[in-house]
Amino acid sequence: MDQLSLKKLFLKERILEVIPVIADMHPADVAESLRDIPLEIQVKLFAELSPEWAAEIIQEVPSEFGAEILNDLAPNKAAEILQQMYTDDAVDLLSRLPKEDAEELIALMKEDGQEIKELLKYEDDTSGGLMATEFVAICEEQTIGEALALLRQQAPSAETAYYIYVLKNDRTLVGVVSLRDLVVNPLDTRVEAIMKRDVIAVPEDMDQEEVARIFEKYGFLVLPVIDKEQKMVGIITVDDILVVNEEEATEDIHKGASIAPLETGYNYAGVWTLFSKRIFWLVALIFVNLISSSVIAAYEGILASVIALTFFIPLLIDTGGNTGAQSATLIIRALVTGDVKLFDWGKVLLKELLVGVCLGLVLGLAGAALGVFYSSPMIGVVIGLTMILIVIVSNLIGMILPFGLTILKLDPAVASGPLITTIVDATGLLIYFSIASWILKL
Amino acid sequence: MDQLSLKKLFLKERILEVIPVIADMHPADVAESLRDIPLEIQVKLFAELSPEWAAEIIQEVPSEFGAEILNDLAPNKAAEILQQMYTDDAVDLLSRLPKEDAEELIALMKEDGQEIKELLKYEDDTSGGLMATEFVAICEEQTIGEALALLRQQAPSAETAYYIYVLKNDRTLVGVVSLRDLVVNPLDTRVEAIMKRDVIAVPEDMDQEEVARIFEKYGFLVLPVIDKEQKMVGIITVDDILVVNEEEATEDIHKGASIAPLETGYNYAGVWTLFSKRIFWLVALIFVNLISSSVIAAYEGILASVIALTFFIPLLIDTGGNTGAQSATLIIRALVTGDVKLFDWGKVLLKELLVGVCLGLVLGLAGAALGVFYSSPMIGVVIGLTMILIVIVSNLIGMILPFGLTILKLDPAVASGPLITTIVDATGLLIYFSIASWILKL
Repeated sequence: MDQLSLKKLFLKERILEVIPVIADMHPADVAESLRDIPLEIQVKLFAELSPEWAAEIIQEVPSEFGAEILNDLAPNKAAEILQQMYTDDAVDLLSRLPKEDAEELIALMKEDGQEIKELLKYEDDTSGGLMATEFVAICEEQTIGEALALLRQQAPSAETAYYIYVLKNDRTLVGVVSLRDLVVNPLDTRVEAIMKRDVIAVPEDMDQEEVARIFEKYGFLVLPVIDKEQKMVGIITVDDILVVNEEEATEDIHKGASIAPLETGYNYAGVWTLFSKRIFWLVALIFVNLISSSVIAAYEGILASVIALTFFIPLLIDTGGNTGAQSATLIIRALVTGDVKLFDWGKVLLKELLVGVCLGLVLGLAGAALGVFYSSPMIGVVIGLTMILIVIVSNLIGMILPFGLTILKLDPAVASGPLITTIVDATGLLIYFSIASWILKL
Repeated sequence: MDQLSLKKLFLKERILEVIPVIADMHPADVAESLRDIPLEIQVKLFAELSPEWAAEIIQEVPSEFGAEILNDLAPNKAAEILQQMYTDDAVDLLSRLPKEDAEELIALMKEDGQEIKELLKYEDDTSGGLMATEFVAICEEQTIGEALALLRQQAPSAETAYYIYVLKNDRTLVGVVSLRDLVVNPLDTRVEAIMKRDVIAVPEDMDQEEVARIFEKYGFLVLPVIDKEQKMVGIITVDDILVVNEEEATEDIHKGASIAPLETGYNYAGVWTLFSKRIFWLVALIFVNLISSSVIAAYEGILASVIALTFFIPLLIDTGGNTGAQSATLIIRALVTGDVKLFDWGKVLLKELLVGVCLGLVLGLAGAALGVFYSSPMIGVVIGLTMILIVIVSNLIGMILPFGLTILKLDPAVASGPLITTIVDATGLLIYFSIASWILKL
């Protein structure tokens, strides 16, 4: 059945006809088909599904929506569904519910609730907030045969079965064996003979962006999480890192346009959220812009005597802003991905100086031609010289600002396109009027 | 040994002392320590290492550098190293070498070279370009015991052993079993009894960004790749997707500032590359900017009679540009991640209209206050009204342009901050002078 017919069935609330259709679908596809269905109909659907099935689907729904669904279901049903989820997904949903509702559900989850309560203490964007507590652990004295028997008995889901962690009695992490190692070695081999000892593990309070970098660098599928006493407390799987990376990229892109992090997808953000995430920088930039207004006011006389100079104001300040936004964007991204380090500043400064000169010469020539064409040869000289200087200076401002912010331990992304444009505008106008008054002898 | 002492050993070319130090390090850490070491010293190191070890390290080096190392090694040694790599990594390196050098190495790789030659035909940024040909395949009639025996005999590396693909004799993909399924079921079970039949596979020519979306949506670790006749040709692993996602995010961020894709990291890009990736849009935008110049020229008389109007030009056009850049950035990212679909346009238009009105009222009030303060009440009215209109219109332009580009099957990212700013400037000036001439009766 196609998406559209499924949607029609949903909207007519023919839930009992929907169930056999979604039975053949991957939970991620079911979650996608729920995208435009009113919440009350979704709740009716989940009330009819088994807790296991409902859990599989809700794990694939964006968590702000998943939380709403759980909140509208009968508390007993919601608790049953949460018990069927990976602990990391359950925690993610519960942390979005009103505190009393979350506590009610945790109480209904009995012993599983205890574990969830522990996990809820971690910050959302740390390794502790990402980890699940489902993993398979053995002792180093055990044999491969015993380990395989343990696996058969616990029957963990596929993604948690690939690595088996070797722990001491006090839960200190001492080694790791892969499922593949268990399969290709003789059954009576002792685990300590084949385990890898230098396990790379992350502390429970590491920032999620740093965790993502470790996954990328080493190409891991799963990373163990340890507490301050080296005791193993959970695992992070790479599928969660894909989501983290997408969120972090979106945040960086938004910051590049002076938008505060949305925390939800655009689709789920209301008018008020969008407004409040955008208004701060727009107002702040107005005040930075007052410098430009003051520069123009100071040179009012020059403008009044050669009104043609005003024609080129947008051309000059926009080109400066565009150049500065380009270099700032390149540098911020390179700093964020670790492609450029702080101590590279000298090399980068030289590179951007050279790039700026090349860009300046080409753009200056274009500017001079336009000046001659639209006005006079003298104006052409003014525009050409101004353009060269503005481009070189803007390019360097775009490079220096992110480095400077990083040195001051501030987020380099504050040097967004809009901020650079605004700063460069004032600088550009100052360059423009100085050159004009010098060459035109005003 | 710390990074700095290791670097010193390297720079003194004491290779035989370096080897025991790096023997204890993860290949990814060794690769990182090579970052600032001159190429000729790196080549001396790899000449001393076993092909297996060299392959492990070179796989972790950015591929533009890995290719340089291979090219400077003796061809026999380079071919031996390539034979030890996963096919996808070997192909990535060979595709960056001059054609004759690559062909020489492929000839030296004997039968492995044939497979590489086939893979080199795929485009870099498609599933075929990402896939490796190392995977384990069995028939549906086999038992779990036979499958495990096959695994013991082939002893595939960990990341390729997690899924075993069930193929017919003509290599058509019919099912998949996970290593976990093999371990938890009785040895005499036939594969067909436990295999999952609806395998999600990707065609060999799918764009890598789409492949990444599938990994994210379903949370897969490995995806099989099939050709046009449904025959299985390779697998893509999630660690490669992490790299693809980072590259794609960087590209999107660069596009947002009108920079053409760099194809290498900033650190590896030379002055000429940086110049050439930036100059096109900077020059193109100058021509778009001529519209703004013409608008000012057309209203020269108004400016000459009320010179104070020029003070507010940067303030008004910058605020418009910033607002438009914000909405364009939000919409482009939402379209790219699939958070907003094309058919959502009505909903998004309404949302951005409302957000634009809210932003416009606040910014208009601020603008009016500044106009009164710096000039006169009448100018305050002009600035306030202009600001409201510019913000609402810019915000909608920032929303409509990415949607329009997507409808025309163009990349929505063309509507970058700089392009939006430039378009919005001309529109803003037109609004400004129309309102000024109407209110001030000029």
